[in-house]
Amino acid sequence: MRKILVLGAGKSSWHLINYLLFNAQEQNWHVTVADASLELAKSRTRNHPSSNAIAFNINDESERKSEINKADIVISLLPPSLHAIAAVECLVAGKNLVTASYVSEQMKSFDADVKNKNLIFLNECGLDPGIDHMSAMQIIHSLQSKGAEIISFKSYTGGLISPESNNNPWGYKFTWNPKNVILAGQGTALYRQNRSNKFTPYHRLFSQTEKINISGIGQFEGYANRNSNAYIETYNLLNISTLLRGTLRYIGYCSSWNLFVHLGITDDTYKINTSSLTYHDWISSYLPDDGKPLLQKLQTQFHYLNLSSDDWNRITWTGILEKTLIPISNGTPAEVLLNLLESKWKLQHGDLDLVVMQHIFEYKLNSKTHTHISSLSVKGENETATAMSKTVGLPMAIAAKLILNGEIKTKGVTIPVIPEIYEPVLNELSELNIIFKVEQG
Amino acid sequence: MRKILVLGAGKSSWHLINYLLFNAQEQNWHVTVADASLELAKSRTRNHPSSNAIAFNINDESERKSEINKADIVISLLPPSLHAIAAVECLVAGKNLVTASYVSEQMKSFDADVKNKNLIFLNECGLDPGIDHMSAMQIIHSLQSKGAEIISFKSYTGGLISPESNNNPWGYKFTWNPKNVILAGQGTALYRQNRSNKFTPYHRLFSQTEKINISGIGQFEGYANRNSNAYIETYNLLNISTLLRGTLRYIGYCSSWNLFVHLGITDDTYKINTSSLTYHDWISSYLPDDGKPLLQKLQTQFHYLNLSSDDWNRITWTGILEKTLIPISNGTPAEVLLNLLESKWKLQHGDLDLVVMQHIFEYKLNSKTHTHISSLSVKGENETATAMSKTVGLPMAIAAKLILNGEIKTKGVTIPVIPEIYEPVLNELSELNIIFKVEQG
Repeated sequence: MRKILVLGAGKSSWHLINYLLFNAQEQNWHVTVADASLELAKSRTRNHPSSNAIAFNINDESERKSEINKADIVISLLPPSLHAIAAVECLVAGKNLVTASYVSEQMKSFDADVKNKNLIFLNECGLDPGIDHMSAMQIIHSLQSKGAEIISFKSYTGGLISPESNNNPWGYKFTWNPKNVILAGQGTALYRQNRSNKFTPYHRLFSQTEKINISGIGQFEGYANRNSNAYIETYNLLNISTLLRGTLRYIGYCSSWNLFVHLGITDDTYKINTSSLTYHDWISSYLPDDGKPLLQKLQTQFHYLNLSSDDWNRITWTGILEKTLIPISNGTPAEVLLNLLESKWKLQHGDLDLVVMQHIFEYKLNSKTHTHISSLSVKGENETATAMSKTVGLPMAIAAKLILNGEIKTKGVTIPVIPEIYEPVLNELSELNIIFKVEQG
Repeated sequence: MRKILVLGAGKSSWHLINYLLFNAQEQNWHVTVADASLELAKSRTRNHPSSNAIAFNINDESERKSEINKADIVISLLPPSLHAIAAVECLVAGKNLVTASYVSEQMKSFDADVKNKNLIFLNECGLDPGIDHMSAMQIIHSLQSKGAEIISFKSYTGGLISPESNNNPWGYKFTWNPKNVILAGQGTALYRQNRSNKFTPYHRLFSQTEKINISGIGQFEGYANRNSNAYIETYNLLNISTLLRGTLRYIGYCSSWNLFVHLGITDDTYKINTSSLTYHDWISSYLPDDGKPLLQKLQTQFHYLNLSSDDWNRITWTGILEKTLIPISNGTPAEVLLNLLESKWKLQHGDLDLVVMQHIFEYKLNSKTHTHISSLSVKGENETATAMSKTVGLPMAIAAKLILNGEIKTKGVTIPVIPEIYEPVLNELSELNIIFKVEQG
């Protein structure tokens, strides 16, 4: 009997836990699902005989030690800031770890110790980061084996809502951590374009978008995501001319979101007193008092942004210009906005989400320039078994299986960019209908 | 013999130290000037018999303990982040402390201990904060004693260059900490306008300026400074409708600086590799590659900003669009910009600086609304004995004298908003020709 400990039973966990339970008997697994909410954990294990659900607090040392000691492998769906606590415990107890999060500096610093203990801490093994790395590296290695030189690589991913469930003007509902959606893009994005580094500060990020077409699905717009240049080395594309990783939204979202950014209401660095304040007053407080009505104030301030009727439609649809009281009394601007959008952008019963990804390669082969475009689109089954939970959870689950069965031999703090990991994971994903289509090349 | 320890001999220290040495014999003072640079400390004491200059490192515990123990009062011109180290030592040794910096949360937390030890830690006792508080409170208390109700108070301060020395299109040269000028306004400004809180995020701060006229000096533009609302309580103006503290610049500076802000090059949160990069390439890296020349790229990107020929003139004057190599190899964008501007905005031999301040009050008295405007302008004597050093240093020096002579009896962590402090300080400042003129009311 091999014991798997899953930390966290939130939005992204449905398919991960379902896969583990479906395969539990055949693989001789016992699955423990641990969450702050016992109810939520139980809703995932659904009394499956190979499982137990527990209430769990990662910050409780004795709980943490006890559960991690019992496990053979730990899969952490915790917020990124809490992975390190789990990682240290795994190191002490000598257990392997799988996450879908970016490798932090702290996580990176465990590498030598993890190798010394003959363990693997596999990170960035979800959707983005995760499937993006794996599918990209498969193409990169395949092109390079033919002698191609890769000139440009752009990769875009979006966690969106499927057209049939798209009943709001933003084309957006929350399918993963909503706070991260509110804070998306803060800081400065860095990418490589035509052999130069390019920096895009937050207040210009949502106006510098690129149109992306995915055959049979539709048109999207993409904005640059974090530090793409970090992947020049990871992907071993040291001479690449252009490298950009980006996020996809339906057309129009970025221009309207940019209004929130320029108002200043996505800021998470200071608290405001919103007791007995209406949304209308709150938004007014971000604009100089010229004695005019709020709509005119916005027009005056943001004439340089695209204030088409689509933008107005999106902004007013949120209710953020209405004279209704803000229900929370003391939060950051980002938290007030989050609180409002959480009810507006909530997946409803029967809603289907949509995950889209596109890789665009340019490469030279036999002195000719070629383009390769491949795309992925995955639709959710319902509001719980989402495409997001499927594409984040299944790569982790499959990787955990491969580690438990000794089929992944790599040790240390790593991400899935080597064939030993990405080949079997992508193979099994395609059996589960997560398949890239080549659009060109 | 009373011993005064001055920590720091930088830009703002000239007049402070000069005042202390000039009065040393009469007051029976010995003045120790401590700086990381012994040479700089010596250039301030100039072998005055009542002084000594020492090389000093605030982080060296034995040096710190030894020097603070010898002193009767400590005047700290250290960077704000280092005041707390000096403050803790003063608390242990039972010494009074004077600074010109904003009261940090940490400094505030010492209040009970400072009172218990029967000490005063007097902060915000320079120009802005300092003279602004003192002169404002004198007017506020005077108006209130007549039964006036203060409706609105705006206060603007600028550390600029005097018209006869103004030979660059920005109307600006560095007269205090240059890094603070580069980072000015980062975060979100908060003020009160017509009974509502107003938030202005950094990327809109330099476009939301107000024109301010100072009789006989000229026109300026002011932008909101930090958290003005914190002073509603400090000034005891709980029912005030409008309160704004701001910073003055010559007309045009803000619009051009806004271009740097919107480019993203005032960011101090990440480092960039600028080895073998020209300014031209560096600025290009903040703009998408559309194949056009840099000037056109800027025009395309910033058509919503005011790109008058004045703006272009200011931007190109800095040399920031030139194909010359950046002399530092690894700094933050803000540090690269600072390095460039430090040479361009350096006070030259014979340059005179200019300090300007204006208070604008509206108040109700006998059912009528009145306006009171008073202004201060101080010119520097030369590039060392600057107006900035005079207006920052003299209030601290005078306050230190009053504390040593027992004329300030207030204890605890405080700022100069009570008559016991501001009356004698303003009186002596006016004898030293630092005098507000009433322009109206």
